[in-house]
Amino acid sequence: MNRRFFEGRKVLCLNMVSSPGSGKTTILEKTINHLIASKKLYVIEGDQQTRLDANRIEKAGAPAIQINTGTGCHLDAEMIESALKKLYVETNAILFIENVGNLVCPAMFDLGENKRVVVISVTEGEDKPLKYPYMFQSSHLCIINKSDLLPYVDFRTEEAIKHARVINPDLEFISVSARTGEGMNKWYEWILNQADIQFRQGMIFQGG
Amino acid sequence: MNRRFFEGRKVLCLNMVSSPGSGKTTILEKTINHLIASKKLYVIEGDQQTRLDANRIEKAGAPAIQINTGTGCHLDAEMIESALKKLYVETNAILFIENVGNLVCPAMFDLGENKRVVVISVTEGEDKPLKYPYMFQSSHLCIINKSDLLPYVDFRTEEAIKHARVINPDLEFISVSARTGEGMNKWYEWILNQADIQFRQGMIFQGG
Repeated sequence: MNRRFFEGRKVLCLNMVSSPGSGKTTILEKTINHLIASKKLYVIEGDQQTRLDANRIEKAGAPAIQINTGTGCHLDAEMIESALKKLYVETNAILFIENVGNLVCPAMFDLGENKRVVVISVTEGEDKPLKYPYMFQSSHLCIINKSDLLPYVDFRTEEAIKHARVINPDLEFISVSARTGEGMNKWYEWILNQADIQFRQGMIFQGG
Repeated sequence: MNRRFFEGRKVLCLNMVSSPGSGKTTILEKTINHLIASKKLYVIEGDQQTRLDANRIEKAGAPAIQINTGTGCHLDAEMIESALKKLYVETNAILFIENVGNLVCPAMFDLGENKRVVVISVTEGEDKPLKYPYMFQSSHLCIINKSDLLPYVDFRTEEAIKHARVINPDLEFISVSARTGEGMNKWYEWILNQADIQFRQGMIFQGG
């Protein structure tokens, strides 16, 4: 039902998933700074506790709703439905969902998103796709973050990509450093391209 | 029941929990290299898939059992009980459990361990204890790993400790780099001290 709502409203919804500390919030802050002049942007933030991330997002300039899951380990579709009732998302907008930092459980929960984006960082080790395959199987794009730390860690990007492709041959990859900005333009292009596709689909769906 | 077994067998059991990629396996490899000459060591490895970690541990010199949780997000006490039947843990040994990389769900599952050790890395951000409080509430020791990357990231160890102490005033901290070896001696001392306590308790329990 969330997916139908997004189609109806012509909204691109991206579900961002990762381990804790991979840099999802920093990526979103930079993305909002870059896209806010040309696009309507909204964010739903999931964490066990605190409003820290929603505060960071609002400071960056986008309306944000924080969902605290308490002892819960993931967001589910009903939580998103409730948050949507408070966010008043406009037509042709982009909605980012920042899921709870957890590479395991959120893989099992479809929120109605159009695309799932898994973020890993070069400090996490290149074997993560093999050890946590479900998240990589169900994602469309893999952002490999913190490329500025590559000189200081034992991480071979090509190996990580090879492992992820064993799990999901269709997975796309963008290597970035949210901190320095390296590679971020490719991510912005990817978003705008997905938004174009979604807006066109939304219009066809409504016969517009 | 697992806890009673450990007391009976005079075994120290440490449950190591963290996000994926914080460096638990590397810490265990180094620990085994250092302690194997003087102590009997065993490891139970939890991952969704693969035997990669158990292979690394066995290469380091300790018997290891790999538990694959499939879509599951944590180890539970029954899995540990089953693994114990295959491991043949000797008296006065130390058993490390490397839990599934997940800062959320394993907090809720008591495996019968004597102490819980949460590992964070300096690349993860100093707000993690506030956002994922249950794991920090239920742990006894917090290892802050990857201290060799401190010059390249925005992480203030004192801030992370301050946040964690809000959640759990009794939590102990050891800052290490498993890669360079910095601080690891404090961790080895902590283990041996805990083993002493456990062995003495085990003896009292049995009237020995």
